[in-house]
Amino acid sequence: MADLLIKNIGVLASPKGQAPLKGADMSNITIAENCVIAAEKGIITYIGTEKDAPKSKEVLDAGGRLITPGLVDAHTHLVFGGWRQHEFELKLKGAAYLDILKAGGGILSTVEKTRAATEDELFNKAKDISLKMAKHGTTTIEAKSGYGLNLEDELKQLKVVKRLNNETDLDFVSTFMGAHAVPPEYKGRSEDYIDFICNEVMPIAAAEKLADFCDIFCETGVFDAILSEKLLLKARELGLKLKIHADEINPVGGSELAGRMKCHSAEHLIAATDEGIDLCAKGGVIAVLLPATSFYLDKPYARARYMMDKGIAVAVASDFNPGSSPNFNMQFPMNLACLKYKMTPKEALSAVTLNAAAAIGMADKIGSIEIRKKADIVIWDAPDLDYLFYRYGNNQALYTIKNGGIL
Amino acid sequence: MADLLIKNIGVLASPKGQAPLKGADMSNITIAENCVIAAEKGIITYIGTEKDAPKSKEVLDAGGRLITPGLVDAHTHLVFGGWRQHEFELKLKGAAYLDILKAGGGILSTVEKTRAATEDELFNKAKDISLKMAKHGTTTIEAKSGYGLNLEDELKQLKVVKRLNNETDLDFVSTFMGAHAVPPEYKGRSEDYIDFICNEVMPIAAAEKLADFCDIFCETGVFDAILSEKLLLKARELGLKLKIHADEINPVGGSELAGRMKCHSAEHLIAATDEGIDLCAKGGVIAVLLPATSFYLDKPYARARYMMDKGIAVAVASDFNPGSSPNFNMQFPMNLACLKYKMTPKEALSAVTLNAAAAIGMADKIGSIEIRKKADIVIWDAPDLDYLFYRYGNNQALYTIKNGGIL
Repeated sequence: MADLLIKNIGVLASPKGQAPLKGADMSNITIAENCVIAAEKGIITYIGTEKDAPKSKEVLDAGGRLITPGLVDAHTHLVFGGWRQHEFELKLKGAAYLDILKAGGGILSTVEKTRAATEDELFNKAKDISLKMAKHGTTTIEAKSGYGLNLEDELKQLKVVKRLNNETDLDFVSTFMGAHAVPPEYKGRSEDYIDFICNEVMPIAAAEKLADFCDIFCETGVFDAILSEKLLLKARELGLKLKIHADEINPVGGSELAGRMKCHSAEHLIAATDEGIDLCAKGGVIAVLLPATSFYLDKPYARARYMMDKGIAVAVASDFNPGSSPNFNMQFPMNLACLKYKMTPKEALSAVTLNAAAAIGMADKIGSIEIRKKADIVIWDAPDLDYLFYRYGNNQALYTIKNGGIL
Repeated sequence: MADLLIKNIGVLASPKGQAPLKGADMSNITIAENCVIAAEKGIITYIGTEKDAPKSKEVLDAGGRLITPGLVDAHTHLVFGGWRQHEFELKLKGAAYLDILKAGGGILSTVEKTRAATEDELFNKAKDISLKMAKHGTTTIEAKSGYGLNLEDELKQLKVVKRLNNETDLDFVSTFMGAHAVPPEYKGRSEDYIDFICNEVMPIAAAEKLADFCDIFCETGVFDAILSEKLLLKARELGLKLKIHADEINPVGGSELAGRMKCHSAEHLIAATDEGIDLCAKGGVIAVLLPATSFYLDKPYARARYMMDKGIAVAVASDFNPGSSPNFNMQFPMNLACLKYKMTPKEALSAVTLNAAAAIGMADKIGSIEIRKKADIVIWDAPDLDYLFYRYGNNQALYTIKNGGIL
């Protein structure tokens, strides 16, 4: 007896094959018509015709619509205090990101508000937002620290992510990103700050199992490639998997470092060099691309097709944060993956499901509609996959199902 | 006794002054804090403090949030059959709009499906979409014909708009756009087609009062400036107000014609020349700019700030249609007005409310929150105007109020 049967599925679209899907393999999408899916204890147990399906306690009629795996948002800065609307006009008038940062604004104003917030305040805010994300089709979320920038407030952010994972229906993956910016207390002393993070913060985050990954902002005016390597080596030693914000604004060796260190993933890569991309391909690094940030900051788009041509597995995520990407709806980066990266709908689907799952180390459990995987499924108000990616601007998720339950 | 009282308004933001607001005057926004609004028989009767407010049958608590006038979508192609997702991959691979058109695809495939649909089918589909538009804050919609391209089917589209106006809570303004494309029956004979429209279709549309405006697609491969002038002169003679799709793709004299003829509005204007913009300014033409189409087609953005500097009144609309702008949510063009046109939130608000109302000849009734205007109001899930425009990607409209009733 199943717990949930989804019947009358018009089109099932799901990636298949060994994750992550690299380059041309990102088109490996199963398209099945007129099928049903059953789930038991949160796990998919049956995909096939209605007549052979198991009986089920609950039946949901998809109305002939499209279903896909639940969306995996592999890169967010979900836990933060305040918002940043008051910088908006300044930004429209042309102030650059690094200039706002230099003036003590930007990320540091979010740091101030995040430090000032209690753990409960941060938890409640992030929980509200994550439930809205779920209504837009997202079933698994990676969330980074990096707005605390001291021991207490970094751990506070990570504890919020842990609580979100334990106390909501969604899955969360936690990334320690103490090296997100240089805090005011260490102004001009980025090396000292990295030592502090390596010696006094990261060991505790790792020992208390508050993070799965470690990430660092390798960028002009933030942390250079040498400091990034130092921190990532320490993170690896502590058992954390490695991510790196690489070459978002300037090519400062981040993608090269990611490739040489065989990081799990490299993020942004807008300004990555050919050499850096080659090294990422050789190192099996997953590229987590964030087109909504390019859109919002009016920056170039990462060379997604070039990376795919080099055999890199590309994931696409929201980069949701209060400064450079104040949007949590994955459907918009999905549109951008097509419109700006020129991915096909099939490739873009892989990028936000199976490859995104791989980017956060969860491809064995989520990211595709397959027997023995979690029943994380979206029923879209769309008749087919092309329609889902072609339409935009309003929420097309009709039902989001997580672990076999309707959210 | 009022019918509706909206209390606990955190911030009221509304354009003020003589419509349309030209250039620098687009920043003329009233910002009032902590006020209430009352409406009677659909009309705003009171704006002020709670203690002096009239008693009301119904009270709505805005929860300290932002309110603005209802959004006016001054340019849509709302009434159509089918969708066009099957062209999406073709488009991503680089096929140009005019090439798809030349190959009998694009707009002509929508013409085929619109002709094949009954009036009721078109009505029901457009009604469903317009109710979704309302949930996203839109309270008044301009809708064009132009997918019939023969007598019967052009009138069918216009009748649908009339029924939408009569049978829904929203206001609709109807535009006759028989000259939207050259139909297959007139292939290579655009002049004959214009004669047919002028002599056999437009007079009936005008006599039956099915349209308020006339519009034409003045563009390379569609209708040149000479044919456009011919049609618009006839439309004026028949009592229709004039709009023109001018210089969307190529500068073919559309904006110059709009200025010389003192058209009510000119649409798109992406490729408009300095001279065309000057003539529009002199002619008092309202520029209806459609940034979502630029976004979706990966085209340049119209020179909105340049037009404003020249004293033009700019409106911003969705251009909702199944080909080049499959988005009906005005919040996205509002974001683009800031992010791409570099309008301030105040200017962008004028562009989608009072100036948009002026662009469809309704500024005496709608477009601002003022006593004696219609109680068309949006309560946003936003604390202030900057937040509304800074955030994007999810629907921020909490309540849409039309003629004093909550939709």
